[in-house]
Amino acid sequence: MPENTEPKRTEISALGEFGLIDHLTSEFPIHHEATKKAIGDDAAVIEFPKDEQTLISTDLLLEGIHFDLSWMPLSHLGYKAVIVNLSDIAAMNAIPRQILVSIGVSNRFPLEALEEIYTGIRAACEQYKIDLIGGDTSSSAAGLAISITVIGSAKNDDIVYRSGAKENDLVCVSGDLGSAYSGLLILQREKKTFEANPNFQPDLDNYEVVIGSQLKPKARVDMVELFKEKKITPTSMIDISDGLASELFHICKNSDCGCSIYEEKLPIDIQTAQVAEEFEITPVMPALNGGEDYELLFTLSLDDYEKVKELHQIIIIGHISDKKDGINLINKAGQSIPLKAQGWDSFRKE
Amino acid sequence: MPENTEPKRTEISALGEFGLIDHLTSEFPIHHEATKKAIGDDAAVIEFPKDEQTLISTDLLLEGIHFDLSWMPLSHLGYKAVIVNLSDIAAMNAIPRQILVSIGVSNRFPLEALEEIYTGIRAACEQYKIDLIGGDTSSSAAGLAISITVIGSAKNDDIVYRSGAKENDLVCVSGDLGSAYSGLLILQREKKTFEANPNFQPDLDNYEVVIGSQLKPKARVDMVELFKEKKITPTSMIDISDGLASELFHICKNSDCGCSIYEEKLPIDIQTAQVAEEFEITPVMPALNGGEDYELLFTLSLDDYEKVKELHQIIIIGHISDKKDGINLINKAGQSIPLKAQGWDSFRKE
Repeated sequence: MPENTEPKRTEISALGEFGLIDHLTSEFPIHHEATKKAIGDDAAVIEFPKDEQTLISTDLLLEGIHFDLSWMPLSHLGYKAVIVNLSDIAAMNAIPRQILVSIGVSNRFPLEALEEIYTGIRAACEQYKIDLIGGDTSSSAAGLAISITVIGSAKNDDIVYRSGAKENDLVCVSGDLGSAYSGLLILQREKKTFEANPNFQPDLDNYEVVIGSQLKPKARVDMVELFKEKKITPTSMIDISDGLASELFHICKNSDCGCSIYEEKLPIDIQTAQVAEEFEITPVMPALNGGEDYELLFTLSLDDYEKVKELHQIIIIGHISDKKDGINLINKAGQSIPLKAQGWDSFRKE
Repeated sequence: MPENTEPKRTEISALGEFGLIDHLTSEFPIHHEATKKAIGDDAAVIEFPKDEQTLISTDLLLEGIHFDLSWMPLSHLGYKAVIVNLSDIAAMNAIPRQILVSIGVSNRFPLEALEEIYTGIRAACEQYKIDLIGGDTSSSAAGLAISITVIGSAKNDDIVYRSGAKENDLVCVSGDLGSAYSGLLILQREKKTFEANPNFQPDLDNYEVVIGSQLKPKARVDMVELFKEKKITPTSMIDISDGLASELFHICKNSDCGCSIYEEKLPIDIQTAQVAEEFEITPVMPALNGGEDYELLFTLSLDDYEKVKELHQIIIIGHISDKKDGINLINKAGQSIPLKAQGWDSFRKE
């Protein structure tokens, strides 16, 4: 937690709970007319356009499970905590508009640490035009806990569920896979090296892309806008938080279908391939099972093929098949290999 | 944590994260047509009636800060975690309809412990007709964390903020004050006695009301229904989570006014008075500063006096005054004593 070694250290208790919330949230502007009442009452009040439905999702991030402050700067943590929530709304083909943020901090954190988290939260809110409308900040007995709830809206016909994929649909993703996991591998390696030799100066220049994917991912709200502009409605969609393989299982289970994806079609950044080589794993492993890329996985009707074939933002990686065919990876040798869902599970025993 | 001493102990990891969520949430029915999609996709989808606004609030409850499992049974914890959220929506004069629940548990908890928490959550959902529409369950490095987000709806003109109190308005509460804090005092005392002598069998028969208030509080959604039935719209409202005095400060700050309340009018249950006597404190202390009663504090126009004077659910405790008069308690001797907001603050150093 390098932030805590800075000279200024203000005890959180100096402000009191209400003063603290005022202090941390006073500079958040409101972007949307729909936000009728933000922070400052028992509940926030939202009035969406009458032809839109409300979408809502929540995530609880716990220190030592979902993040490690030894390599995750607090401002990036705040930023990423917002992004992973926005991604859930984008995955419904909807636009996120508001968030509520609750944070529990132990007294080892000074006020300045909370300010850094909120700096990251505010950066994400500015970038994606999100209104902070509620939440609370409290003490914790141990560790840092961040709970974010996100609210979005969309017209009924635009909402895309996991359940609409049909046989012969195209299976697509919105960008590179495996980057965030590759970034994690590098950050964990540097942490170990640093622990062994605190004078070690890491050279991370060759890993900017993958570390960026891990520390500062994007929420692909731009894809929702692209779909709208191109008049495309995916038949099913999910965001890739736990790894492509795991998300394919969700789509196929909910849509009652199978699928085949092609190894040679998987978009993998050159740095991800380099990191895979350094760690002596095949690059397809982080692409399939890495997780945290927050790209969108979606299916499109074949009828949309003409619309999407020239769009660089949409990468076709396979097709939907009958359920009895199962979920398969066609490798570069043309062999069909049944996939396993090896997505991240916080309860799994290593 | 007496629940963990029972013979059956299933490791949570046996189910995996998705199996676990299915297992815990499969028996929750959906009560509202507005709930278009509950658990099972990236986000939940709600469609409220077109003339209603959406209300939303969230709470993060952390072990060792907001609850103590040595005297709080897990099922009661789950129940109460829902109630405190419903209360926030009732405090806006709105009806809560949906919740999202995220839980982080360390591996010291078996599956059966999580099941108990969800038993309590389900009991609250059944009682208040609430749909469980999302959330997640993850591992935690230490301690239990529960984050709940609640969504409700109300017509625009019915929503009551903290900011509408006017001079001469009646200051009212919906029920007994100080009970929950008195229950806490008893539970903490029994815990100490038990620690000193584990064979000690506590006799809690004389404390049923106050312990019930602490372990199984009510969310006063019935008051929202009463207001509607009687065509009463409070001018301002808040729920009493941090103690009457603290909430009066919120109302007066947001409404830019002062107030006087009368000690003799404060509704205090006989058991609260008994506990106060045992602990050698004046009963007005838990009533003013105890917190966790989750009764509603609200102000009414004098024009509504005829409507409410016969309603036993509405207890008039004082009136709103000019801001310059401050916030005062008129004691039984007729003296006016400026109140201090001594509400609970998780950051305060004891």
